[in-house]
Amino acid sequence: MIEKLTLILGGARSGKSSYAEQLAQKSGLAPVYLATAEPHDAEMHKRIEAHKQRRPAHWSTLEEPIAIVEALKKASTENSIVLLDCLTLWLSNLFASEHDANGQIVGLLSVLQTLPGPVIIVSNEVGLGIVPENALARAFRDVHGALNQKIASQADLVIFMAAGLPLVLKSNRS
Amino acid sequence: MIEKLTLILGGARSGKSSYAEQLAQKSGLAPVYLATAEPHDAEMHKRIEAHKQRRPAHWSTLEEPIAIVEALKKASTENSIVLLDCLTLWLSNLFASEHDANGQIVGLLSVLQTLPGPVIIVSNEVGLGIVPENALARAFRDVHGALNQKIASQADLVIFMAAGLPLVLKSNRS
Amino acid sequence: MIEKLTLILGGARSGKSSYAEQLAQKSGLAPVYLATAEPHDAEMHKRIEAHKQRRPAHWSTLEEPIAIVEALKKASTENSIVLLDCLTLWLSNLFASEHDANGQIVGLLSVLQTLPGPVIIVSNEVGLGIVPENALARAFRDVHGALNQKIASQADLVIFMAAGLPLVLKSNRS
Repeated sequence: MIEKLTLILGGARSGKSSYAEQLAQKSGLAPVYLATAEPHDAEMHKRIEAHKQRRPAHWSTLEEPIAIVEALKKASTENSIVLLDCLTLWLSNLFASEHDANGQIVGLLSVLQTLPGPVIIVSNEVGLGIVPENALARAFRDVHGALNQKIASQADLVIFMAAGLPLVLKSNRS
Repeated sequence: MIEKLTLILGGARSGKSSYAEQLAQKSGLAPVYLATAEPHDAEMHKRIEAHKQRRPAHWSTLEEPIAIVEALKKASTENSIVLLDCLTLWLSNLFASEHDANGQIVGLLSVLQTLPGPVIIVSNEVGLGIVPENALARAFRDVHGALNQKIASQADLVIFMAAGLPLVLKSNRS
Repeated sequence: MIEKLTLILGGARSGKSSYAEQLAQKSGLAPVYLATAEPHDAEMHKRIEAHKQRRPAHWSTLEEPIAIVEALKKASTENSIVLLDCLTLWLSNLFASEHDANGQIVGLLSVLQTLPGPVIIVSNEVGLGIVPENALARAFRDVHGALNQKIASQADLVIFMAAGLPLVLKSNRS
């Protein structure tokens, strides 16, 4: 049994992606990795490659920095499980672009309720440090926190990761 | 049944205020909202207005950026419940003022033990990011963390919020 | 009964050291405090002194900013319990030095499996804020998160502290 919508929340390097991959693997469905990262620089390129190496060869991969609503519609089937990794980079890409972030968020929340197969979303918690001096970072933190809340309220399973260990925040599993 | 002192801890946009309002609402007592925010700029003004719109009309509101000890004494009765939102902005106001932060903190911890009605305190956890480069931010983080510990040790109920979901850290409810 | 390896994780001023000291005290073994802090400036000097004052007089203290593998070998016996406080400052010292951080980390993970007595490690979670603008801070955050995961996977007990309250993330205690 796999939940319709799972949210894996945590800090940087808390083991979110790795845990999400295990959940997808255990589902028995065909995993589709929906990557939102863009290999802008060497640092990000290295991180993307490390993630790729870790995933089994039978996973299919979709790279989409912005239009994830369309990518989710394309990737989700009754026999597949989509792993969206990660919401934070997607939101960051939106903030760096000319796109309407609010419109995209509404579209995402809406499409998640109509997909035929399960989805696992990886997302960062970014609001537990000192208030950023940068106004854009403050705005990002606010929009991101609100988005995490909305995803969590729709999700059947919400996990908080710390040091590679999962903590269940919400479970609709009976 | 409502606890004498409740602490709602969490990051920015983690759903702290909203959850605290629900607790106050469910208590059956007359809620008094004790706001520590000052509408210095448009960003903060907008946030304060959004909070106000969300609260039911029968709530009374007290605005006090610094002298919350006196405000708590004034607001707390046997038939009311005070929601202090939030400790972080109060401490930030103290740091930005000429007031003696330590003296004010001692006063707060002391008055909390003598109030006739229950109090819910909303506070940020700010120590889970990289060490701030700014020395004042480091000092603030230290004083804030120590204050959260002291409030938590007095509290009957301590909740950690993440993505709008509550996690009980402490409960004296039997 | 005391676990072979305990990890106490948390933010700044979350009560990690204090909780770790209580665990060490309760073990009945002879506590050795292995301090990684260097009194570079007045702020750090004050913090170190406050920690020292809090510990009972019968604790022995070892100060070692870098070579903790050797210090652990020296301090650990069947009748002692070593409290390493903290991993974050050690890693920070390594980053500020010419030492090979990866080599030192491998050495630490290896020595932890061979010590005769139990060890408690205090460490910060630093990845729950906004992405740092500073590239070195980002690298530190990544290496630190990965190290926390590795220590946690070896540990028998992992505790997350918030506002002085412990939350068990992992326990092999049956």
